Amino acid sequence: MTSDPKPVGVAVLGYGNVGSEVVRIIESSAADLTARIGAPLVLRGIGVRRVNANRGVPIELLTDDIDELVTRDDVDIVVELMGPVEPSRKAILSAIEHGKSVVTANKALLAGSTGELARAAERAHVDLYFEASVAGAIPVIRPLTQSLAGDSVLRVIGIVNGTTNYILSEMETTGADYASALADASTLGYAEADPTADVDGYDAASKAAILASIAFHTTVTADDVYREGITAITTEDFASAQALNCTIKLLALCERIVDEDGREMVSARVYPALVPAAHPLATVGGAFNAVVVEAEAAGRLMFYGQGAGGAPTASAVTGDIVMAARNRVQGGRGPRESKYAQLPIAPIGKVSTRYYVSMDVADRSGVLSAVAAEFANHGVSIAEVRQEGVVADSGERVGARIVVVTHRATEAALADTITALEELDVVANVASVLRLEGTDP
Amino acid sequence: MTSDPKPVGVAVLGYGNVGSEVVRIIESSAADLTARIGAPLVLRGIGVRRVNANRGVPIELLTDDIDELVTRDDVDIVVELMGPVEPSRKAILSAIEHGKSVVTANKALLAGSTGELARAAERAHVDLYFEASVAGAIPVIRPLTQSLAGDSVLRVIGIVNGTTNYILSEMETTGADYASALADASTLGYAEADPTADVDGYDAASKAAILASIAFHTTVTADDVYREGITAITTEDFASAQALNCTIKLLALCERIVDEDGREMVSARVYPALVPAAHPLATVGGAFNAVVVEAEAAGRLMFYGQGAGGAPTASAVTGDIVMAARNRVQGGRGPRESKYAQLPIAPIGKVSTRYYVSMDVADRSGVLSAVAAEFANHGVSIAEVRQEGVVADSGERVGARIVVVTHRATEAALADTITALEELDVVANVASVLRLEGTDP
Repeated sequence: MTSDPKPVGVAVLGYGNVGSEVVRIIESSAADLTARIGAPLVLRGIGVRRVNANRGVPIELLTDDIDELVTRDDVDIVVELMGPVEPSRKAILSAIEHGKSVVTANKALLAGSTGELARAAERAHVDLYFEASVAGAIPVIRPLTQSLAGDSVLRVIGIVNGTTNYILSEMETTGADYASALADASTLGYAEADPTADVDGYDAASKAAILASIAFHTTVTADDVYREGITAITTEDFASAQALNCTIKLLALCERIVDEDGREMVSARVYPALVPAAHPLATVGGAFNAVVVEAEAAGRLMFYGQGAGGAPTASAVTGDIVMAARNRVQGGRGPRESKYAQLPIAPIGKVSTRYYVSMDVADRSGVLSAVAAEFANHGVSIAEVRQEGVVADSGERVGARIVVVTHRATEAALADTITALEELDVVANVASVLRLEGTDP
Repeated sequence: MTSDPKPVGVAVLGYGNVGSEVVRIIESSAADLTARIGAPLVLRGIGVRRVNANRGVPIELLTDDIDELVTRDDVDIVVELMGPVEPSRKAILSAIEHGKSVVTANKALLAGSTGELARAAERAHVDLYFEASVAGAIPVIRPLTQSLAGDSVLRVIGIVNGTTNYILSEMETTGADYASALADASTLGYAEADPTADVDGYDAASKAAILASIAFHTTVTADDVYREGITAITTEDFASAQALNCTIKLLALCERIVDEDGREMVSARVYPALVPAAHPLATVGGAFNAVVVEAEAAGRLMFYGQGAGGAPTASAVTGDIVMAARNRVQGGRGPRESKYAQLPIAPIGKVSTRYYVSMDVADRSGVLSAVAAEFANHGVSIAEVRQEGVVADSGERVGARIVVVTHRATEAALADTITALEELDVVANVASVLRLEGTDP
């Protein structure tokens, strides 16, 4: 008879939506988890800001002494679900230095670090897992680091922020403007009181940084990500999108590009873009997330599911805990991200894509040709153009609008074109510029 | 200065579409793979049935002595891509016994074995990976075993056979009957000369067995999978499906069910089924594959991509090679499937789902009520019923047809209902019985 295996001790930091669900799973699935790990998983403590009863867990499990909890001898795995960058960073580094494996969902921390946590984990020979940091329950980190380890990733395009996806879906289906769709999202609990992190694209930018780092074996931080939010999207944009058989989605794009000198670079960017109705991302509605990965040999893959919420996120966190625990029991470590490539970050001007430009113009002949000439002058080729009268409520025609869809061009060439258009006498203003993604060139 | 790491030796058995693509990736991505593994990956030999030149690889790499190749001291990983169950089984067992890790895409072998290969790998402390055995390039094995290791899988529903999906897509879009859609698929190379393994559902059943084993930690072999093919699907079935706003897909379903005595069981089955147009699997067309996983905490996840072809399958195989090689270099082993649960296999009669039944009936009053009574007699509740006249080419009305869609009922109750219907004088014949999957009860 063999002796019972030594249990694996877990400390959970943070007891919100996700933390409480993780604790629930650890308790309610104990027998299954033991069988999968090869040893019992034992909850040693829960770190909270303030210890009080009525949390649904024995009060003796709660502690506000995070420093002590993460260094305890009977803790093998620290699960960080507190949220803000500090004190999470300090707690994780201390846990790693004390030989604990770490599971975290802290995207802002991961995307802000230039690899500090990964290097610390490397030195201490412990696991650092973060599947839940991007797209909640949807496995994307593990497929990218492991399943595609023999392939070359070309591009990752994701809808990774549920709040903005809900708002954009609302605008599309109900015809609501941005402000009322946001208000709806707040009422339903899909948007926070201060929605800045979501609607200005900061949350998606953190996730883009994490995805780009892993996909291209390169350090990419949130600051490296070009970012535009959805606050300027109008009902007119949706009308134009519909006319082009497209929808509008906030995309996180990570791409390996080759510049004009043949240098490989990594581009990571977040912006609202037109997406053709036939593209698999176009039908990802509401609070769902999806990530499309294009790789050299695998072709196009898509991963789809719930990107947020306590239970889905807890699923990803608990999967990481089980993997880290198995590694403990078997004396190994899991595969980790590598940064061997360290490609330079492409400035936004070097990125090329397609564009949709709408502008209010003078209602007279010759305007279209003047506008088209500016695109040509800057080497931006036009794929499609529409001119229409703008009619006031009175029924009187009060102006005209031109909508242009371009072929592929660099952001630099497009920016120069827009500047030139704005200087034209016949152009009252450039109302909207959006990228068009997910089409063939 | 540290000394150069010892290279990891690879032997590839089989040099068809997938094997040649794996060899190409190993050669062309050598620098990347070395960085990811931490040591160079060196191709030691390629096992083929007959050694001859003009294969695009140095002839000295080729050998027909598989026995010798898989036991060579400088081989660490054996990649089996030969296909048939034998001699693959013998070669894999020999490789494992000689301490090699094994990567295979051999679904028939895996689905036929009751865990023989896994037990051998366990004894020898080597890795046995098979991501490519199900759904080609799409990561499903690794997400199920690792990402969802902390969750409870409830159900896996997949479109995992490209040939049948192509044929059904053709029938739907062009209105072709089964025979001509199959002929088209053969001409285009989507169907083999003998299409039995695909159209009768054997290939999908092997994949269902593998998915069910992993999802439910239970030994499931291909023989445990209830199986119906697509050869009986008619253009009338597609017309009825369309009228119900559904399409028809060959599904591989793996489900944890609880029988009337409260016993947990595993059901694995393959059959063509009606799928509502709004279900994510409905739009998976042509040669694409998709797998939907429903888990307790994660909710519904979908994985989508190319399920076959040399390059996509090679992507999955090479990912497994890199993971096995990393484990070699770092002295560990990856996580492997566990069979701790060993739930009993549910007989098909205990499975419950919804049904579509179409029957040719006498064209007179009272028929509908007689038919409805038989459903009620057997406890099968009707959700929807349509009766329509059958009109001959001459324009004359020559009979009537009744189409019934049921609520959820057991297969046993449905089978009894069908027997009773066939005994009714007013029922000429039951033309078609199909399941309806992917709806709420």
